[in-house]
Amino acid sequence: AKTYNICLLPGDGIGPEIIAEGVKVLDAVGVKYDTAFAYTEALLGGCAIDATGTALPDETLHVAEASDAVLLAAVGGPKWDTTDPAKPRPEQGLLGIRKALGLYTNLRPVQIFAALADASTLKPEIVDGVDMMIVRELTGGLYFGRRERFYDEEGCGTHGAAGQRAYDTLEYREYEVERIARQAFEAARKRRNKVTSVDKANVLETSRMWREIVHRIGAEEYPDVELEDLLVDNTAMQLISRPVDFDVVVTENMFGDILSDEAAQITGSLGMLASASLGDGTALYEPSHGSAPDIAGKGIANPLAQILSVEMMLRYSFNLGEAADDIRRAVTAVLDEGWRTGDIKQADTPADKVVGTVQMGDLVVAHL
Amino acid sequence: AKTYNICLLPGDGIGPEIIAEGVKVLDAVGVKYDTAFAYTEALLGGCAIDATGTALPDETLHVAEASDAVLLAAVGGPKWDTTDPAKPRPEQGLLGIRKALGLYTNLRPVQIFAALADASTLKPEIVDGVDMMIVRELTGGLYFGRRERFYDEEGCGTHGAAGQRAYDTLEYREYEVERIARQAFEAARKRRNKVTSVDKANVLETSRMWREIVHRIGAEEYPDVELEDLLVDNTAMQLISRPVDFDVVVTENMFGDILSDEAAQITGSLGMLASASLGDGTALYEPSHGSAPDIAGKGIANPLAQILSVEMMLRYSFNLGEAADDIRRAVTAVLDEGWRTGDIKQADTPADKVVGTVQMGDLVVAHL
Ligand SMILES: CC(C)[C@H](C(=O)O)[C@@H](O)C(=O)O
Ligand SMILES: CC(C)[C@H](C(=O)O)[C@@H](O)C(=O)O
Repeated sequence: AKTYNICLLPGDGIGPEIIAEGVKVLDAVGVKYDTAFAYTEALLGGCAIDATGTALPDETLHVAEASDAVLLAAVGGPKWDTTDPAKPRPEQGLLGIRKALGLYTNLRPVQIFAALADASTLKPEIVDGVDMMIVRELTGGLYFGRRERFYDEEGCGTHGAAGQRAYDTLEYREYEVERIARQAFEAARKRRNKVTSVDKANVLETSRMWREIVHRIGAEEYPDVELEDLLVDNTAMQLISRPVDFDVVVTENMFGDILSDEAAQITGSLGMLASASLGDGTALYEPSHGSAPDIAGKGIANPLAQILSVEMMLRYSFNLGEAADDIRRAVTAVLDEGWRTGDIKQADTPADKVVGTVQMGDLVVAHL
Repeated sequence: AKTYNICLLPGDGIGPEIIAEGVKVLDAVGVKYDTAFAYTEALLGGCAIDATGTALPDETLHVAEASDAVLLAAVGGPKWDTTDPAKPRPEQGLLGIRKALGLYTNLRPVQIFAALADASTLKPEIVDGVDMMIVRELTGGLYFGRRERFYDEEGCGTHGAAGQRAYDTLEYREYEVERIARQAFEAARKRRNKVTSVDKANVLETSRMWREIVHRIGAEEYPDVELEDLLVDNTAMQLISRPVDFDVVVTENMFGDILSDEAAQITGSLGMLASASLGDGTALYEPSHGSAPDIAGKGIANPLAQILSVEMMLRYSFNLGEAADDIRRAVTAVLDEGWRTGDIKQADTPADKVVGTVQMGDLVVAHL
């Protein structure tokens, strides 16, 4: 039996609780499919700051690089919130590992489980059948451009007085746009063959370059895939008014951050959405939701997004499509039977169907 | 009777049709309140490019500067779409006039008319009572920072080959953040006394500076106003899940562009939303929607957002609050009677209640 080495990054808040359920599911898959998973745990985010003073210790990066895949839970919390540039912040761990592993493609599938259709704040006829894939560029743009803050003796305060000024840089190179465009077109070929490329070409130079390059790659290499452009502000509207029409949505890092969260919320069940971050080497899988510090340690967090990120890992990193399908079927069955964690509980969910983190993990394993 | 000089900018697409209805309403208000409005029409956007080669002719700027207020309809259309930096684009007219008039505050009220509550794609219990004011910074950030595109002999193409790179700069100075923060706090004092400041402080240096300055202004000058911070990605979610909770939302230019459109779409009736752009001199009023080239010239465009931008003009530039209230009452009455343009027509609207642009303007005037 083949052994896959997985780097586990529990992170902060509910992280340790939900990642344990992800591991439980992996172990069950291992038994069923005669595959072995070996785990090495490492520190990332707030817990890493507390233990080592930095959000991404070298040791963590070494473990990640040496692994076949990385399973992350979530990082961050109010304990480490600061605007002081001199202090470390948990997010630096996340951004740092994305950059170091070259994870330039973030895939965020947005789908609605039939049993949870009612959780959306949108009308059922609007969300029925929503099935899109957000392809977010993850290692460029405003996230990694040059940034600085100054104090100027004049011109930055009111009436020309002294004051501060700051800048961030949104930068892209041709190859960065080319490779993410290819990822989007490839994803579309496995789906409904349509790509919506989102930019702000009526204002930004990076967007005008983005649009030209995406069209060139589309015309030269993917003439069979339908391609449309949509301005980012318009996209923010269309995601709410006609979400069903979107198949693959590709966009730069910051627009992707905003739009993927908006799209996730359309489902009304953020606790169900996973994501994959892919590059040329080790890939990383994590839930789309955050570390939920307010419910940490209570045993009530929803582990399903973490479990579905395991599904993505099996599919994209290990090519175990059958096992991945199995996990999705198990999760669907558990939901169809009415089992709910608190976050996805609906008005008519009976009290005895509300379960905690561990029980939810057990239920999924029982259905495998 | 006092005479107010108004610069009219019909622009492109449906612009000329809807601005005519705005003028009709202004004239009716003039008669009723013994006030005179004098109009000077000027070119902006695509029509200006066609006539003069530039989207913001000097003549237009002179007329605007010499006026007491500017009433704009909408600019742009596929005819002028281009990614060629050497060609003029209609949006340059809009961005140019915002900058030249120093219109740093964009106010976008988001409200639901009871008669149109059903138009939203969100569930009625979610949108019932939505009433927020988006305060968008309008003359800074990525919109006006330095931008460039290069061709590099190496490093920008795939495998280190030659290729393009481009950048845009997100820049803010202390006084720019101070003055928009004050506008937000002032707006909140006239409303429900709560400000949500939106940024991406976990990534951007400009956001960390933004957050510090907004908090300082709040603590020093507006201790009576409640202030909360929300990350932009989280805001994109919360706007859908609990829109009723927002009062004043203040944010930088690009985030404001995206979030104000998302918030507008929550109402489901973009054709009803107006905006005001304020600075230290002449202010500008326009609908939140675009130039809708697909329905231009057909006499079916909804003029109500334009008419409600006249309402904002009376309120903010001329201090004619009573006349402004009158317009709002008239629009509400027309909607309550069931009159609809095509865009706000609902499944159960009888065919004989669907009216065109001119009739809708006439109906509002009849109710004044
Ligand atoms: C935590 C934060 C830096 C991160 C991002 O903005 O990329 C998060 O919001 C995400 O989307 O994964
Ligand atoms: C036309 C475009 C440049 C403009 C903007 O992005 O500001 C528009 O979307 C708006 O919001 O007024």
